[in-house]
Amino acid sequence: MNQKCIGIDIGGTSVKMGLFQADGTLLKKWEIPTRKEDGGANILGDIAASIRRQMKGEGIALTELAGAGMGLPGPVLPNGHIEFCVNLGWKAGNPQEELSRLLDGIPVKSGNDANVAALGEMWQGGGRGYKNLVMVTLGTGVGGGVILNEKIWTGMQGVGGEIGHMHIVEGEKEQCNCHGYGCLEQVASATGIARVARRLLEKDERPSVLRQAANLNAKHVLDAAKAGDELALEALNTSCYYLGWALAAVTMVLDPEAYLIGGGVSRAGTFLTDLIRKYHNELSPMATKKADIVLAELGNDAGIYGAAKLILG
Amino acid sequence: MNQKCIGIDIGGTSVKMGLFQADGTLLKKWEIPTRKEDGGANILGDIAASIRRQMKGEGIALTELAGAGMGLPGPVLPNGHIEFCVNLGWKAGNPQEELSRLLDGIPVKSGNDANVAALGEMWQGGGRGYKNLVMVTLGTGVGGGVILNEKIWTGMQGVGGEIGHMHIVEGEKEQCNCHGYGCLEQVASATGIARVARRLLEKDERPSVLRQAANLNAKHVLDAAKAGDELALEALNTSCYYLGWALAAVTMVLDPEAYLIGGGVSRAGTFLTDLIRKYHNELSPMATKKADIVLAELGNDAGIYGAAKLILG
Repeated sequence: MNQKCIGIDIGGTSVKMGLFQADGTLLKKWEIPTRKEDGGANILGDIAASIRRQMKGEGIALTELAGAGMGLPGPVLPNGHIEFCVNLGWKAGNPQEELSRLLDGIPVKSGNDANVAALGEMWQGGGRGYKNLVMVTLGTGVGGGVILNEKIWTGMQGVGGEIGHMHIVEGEKEQCNCHGYGCLEQVASATGIARVARRLLEKDERPSVLRQAANLNAKHVLDAAKAGDELALEALNTSCYYLGWALAAVTMVLDPEAYLIGGGVSRAGTFLTDLIRKYHNELSPMATKKADIVLAELGNDAGIYGAAKLILG
Repeated sequence: MNQKCIGIDIGGTSVKMGLFQADGTLLKKWEIPTRKEDGGANILGDIAASIRRQMKGEGIALTELAGAGMGLPGPVLPNGHIEFCVNLGWKAGNPQEELSRLLDGIPVKSGNDANVAALGEMWQGGGRGYKNLVMVTLGTGVGGGVILNEKIWTGMQGVGGEIGHMHIVEGEKEQCNCHGYGCLEQVASATGIARVARRLLEKDERPSVLRQAANLNAKHVLDAAKAGDELALEALNTSCYYLGWALAAVTMVLDPEAYLIGGGVSRAGTFLTDLIRKYHNELSPMATKKADIVLAELGNDAGIYGAAKLILG
């Protein structure tokens, strides 16, 4: 099969799109703003119009495409139904059916954006060669995606892979966005890493370069930890301990071949994955063959790659 | 298909066997002792001889059977290879290939016993009607099995479903059999429940009927908790809190339809599952559709049922 297809990644600010060959070559990518007004009523129409325009420019008829895949910021059922997409203003509906209608009936498939990104990394990124992996995206929040036998695992309501909302910290008094207390996201996201450091700074008087940082963020903590700042190292170790613990729990459930670490925080590179691996391995002694813990590679393009792979199967 | 097949469950003391119809009817069951001497060299021969004898009695030729399935007490790779079976004295080998040879080449398949029991419960026990479930067996240890799309999920090295060795208790100083510290098994197995109660008894002077128990065990704790003994209730709540926490973590990874609670401890019935459900639901607020938490039904027969199902597919 040498048909081409489209990968679409709908975010709260912009919609990224790419034209792919079946072998994974990204031929062209472009983006348009996400118009969230009127309950996001224009988003799918804008996407369809943009695809038509781009395909016209390429001299490709819609019917020549194998289809379009789409990553959405929310839970998606296997049939494409969504209950809501808070960030887009969408209520219950079936965006993949709607987009297919807007594109002369070409096949459209969709999935949750974090899951779709995991699929993209498996296909053409840091997860090449693995069939079973779990991706963890360390950004403002902690996202996750589970890939089993090269397919996204959503679970019965799309909660599968929501690693960020595994309860992991006992006694946490602050509430998480999910209404839980002590979620992994609260200590291991970019926001979480900064929060752990801030709490350490408040707890004692130790000197630390972090005391000079205005609007302390995860990058400050990671940079200071790399430079050997003791308090920053302690903060990062705490975050990576909880991450390693959560992944060790996943290992006892799924025993995957690999974990992929992505998102803004993962720019810290192997300094970060080494720490996560240390705690994961300590806390999963029964798994004598250790899962690989590696960096994601596609960055913000993971979503369009995975969306294309949804269609290519 | 109305062919018959054999289900075999090899334990450290006895080998249970059953003759099944394809519709799940158990036509006959029997058992033989497990001869562990000489590195378990006689076990498969004994099984083959016993099956030949029983089939002769039934007037069924081996070639009329769809095959035989087998549950083994250890990790089993998808191709039937095992690295060891400590409880049977077995070293590396492929018992399913060997048993097939001993039974004139009829198909033989095998799996880990806890996984196979989970499959049996899905087929004909408490898990009927579910396609995706996680079974937790609360016995001397805590076993587990993951069923996805009606099939056993083993993971890359057979560690999939080893719920009992999820790290869950921080700061535990005693070592688990797996060489870890703070595994679920240490607080939620029959042994673990008694241990939690014993620690509470040592910690303070509160009156409790458990102070009179000789060789305090999980049944004492469960009975006393049902009767309203405050300390026993606290112990059981602690165990169920960790169980609920572990299952909530599984929910965020796999989002299964149901959890099946089996093993000796599960004789406490819905008193136990109600407590586990309470903590599971509290610690997984993002899963608005709650997984069912139900009792297993097949008891010690789950293994032979699941083993038969391995063959029936």
